[in-house]
Amino acid sequence: MSKGNKTRQRIVSEAAALFNKQGFAGSSMADLMEATGLEKGGIYRHFSSKEEVAAEAFDYAWQVATDLRMHDLDSVANSVDRLKRFVANFVERRSPVPGGCPLLNTAVEADDGNPVMRERARTALRQWHSQLSSITTSGIRKGEIRKGVSPKKLATLIVSSLEGALMISRLERSNEALRGVQAHLNDHLEAEVRSRKSPRKPS
Amino acid sequence: MSKGNKTRQRIVSEAAALFNKQGFAGSSMADLMEATGLEKGGIYRHFSSKEEVAAEAFDYAWQVATDLRMHDLDSVANSVDRLKRFVANFVERRSPVPGGCPLLNTAVEADDGNPVMRERARTALRQWHSQLSSITTSGIRKGEIRKGVSPKKLATLIVSSLEGALMISRLERSNEALRGVQAHLNDHLEAEVRSRKSPRKPS
Repeated sequence: MSKGNKTRQRIVSEAAALFNKQGFAGSSMADLMEATGLEKGGIYRHFSSKEEVAAEAFDYAWQVATDLRMHDLDSVANSVDRLKRFVANFVERRSPVPGGCPLLNTAVEADDGNPVMRERARTALRQWHSQLSSITTSGIRKGEIRKGVSPKKLATLIVSSLEGALMISRLERSNEALRGVQAHLNDHLEAEVRSRKSPRKPS
Repeated sequence: MSKGNKTRQRIVSEAAALFNKQGFAGSSMADLMEATGLEKGGIYRHFSSKEEVAAEAFDYAWQVATDLRMHDLDSVANSVDRLKRFVANFVERRSPVPGGCPLLNTAVEADDGNPVMRERARTALRQWHSQLSSITTSGIRKGEIRKGVSPKKLATLIVSSLEGALMISRLERSNEALRGVQAHLNDHLEAEVRSRKSPRKPS
């Protein structure tokens, strides 16, 4: 990586921590200069605006969060167990980018405001939804998940309850809400999602 | 109400809309002057700082939201039906204060930041929790809700999943996530919360 690329990457990762904690409106160019140790000119050499830095910083923070939540998922064969592992990853693995979930933070700040950041959050939400839905769809095909389960509705339930519990857990500085929602989702996955008949054996 | 009190109240309600949409960091004194049509001096005659306006504006927005969510709850006799009505109110009734749920907005913005706003959000969350918990506790006492149900865990589940679904619904500008979570909570309340034996008749 060239020195210029390294600097650019460093700006993005420092900005990700800053924006994820303080929000887009709450982070000034002066904050960004302090976080990166660069002069304004040094930042504008790589980016045209605060918004451009924030958009790339969001993508970076979201990629880090996604990697953590998807961690080791491929090693779990059964689709229901894979959904449970996803939930456990969300509850147990904290991102090195501080400030909580980039999607929740950006969605709540941008829902009435900045269209560029709002679009970024929407794309992230849809990507996440489709990852979870495809696990369910494949589980139905393999006979591990009941035919009547809606992949879309199940994804919405998982995303909604985890994001809401994260809001509470961060406000209360306790994992209790996340643990409670994890227990509820696990019960639901066992009682209403996992197929009652034994799954088709791999040929 | 005196003219001074009326002006103060008008500042609070205009500020509530502004802060709930744009956030604390995203709302400047200039925005507040524009929203209220007052000069800076006219605002500082009633409040000592932007933070003081924001704290009162939060309390106002939260009171409006709580009144809507609690609407008509007293007219529902059975505790499980009362919880279902609460969920329906959350999904169906939109506050006249625009910008979504004041608790979600303030919690997400203040969890790493402003301690005054963070404390405000924490108090609101606890009040909400205790309102829901007391419905469940009374339902257990009356035999309408199963003894094994934890009032605290049930409140956490309801708050988490509704707040997370609200984030999605506002981002997608569609009620689908809220409707999906409402259906899930109603199923859960019928299948796992409502007492199987008929409730004790009122004496």
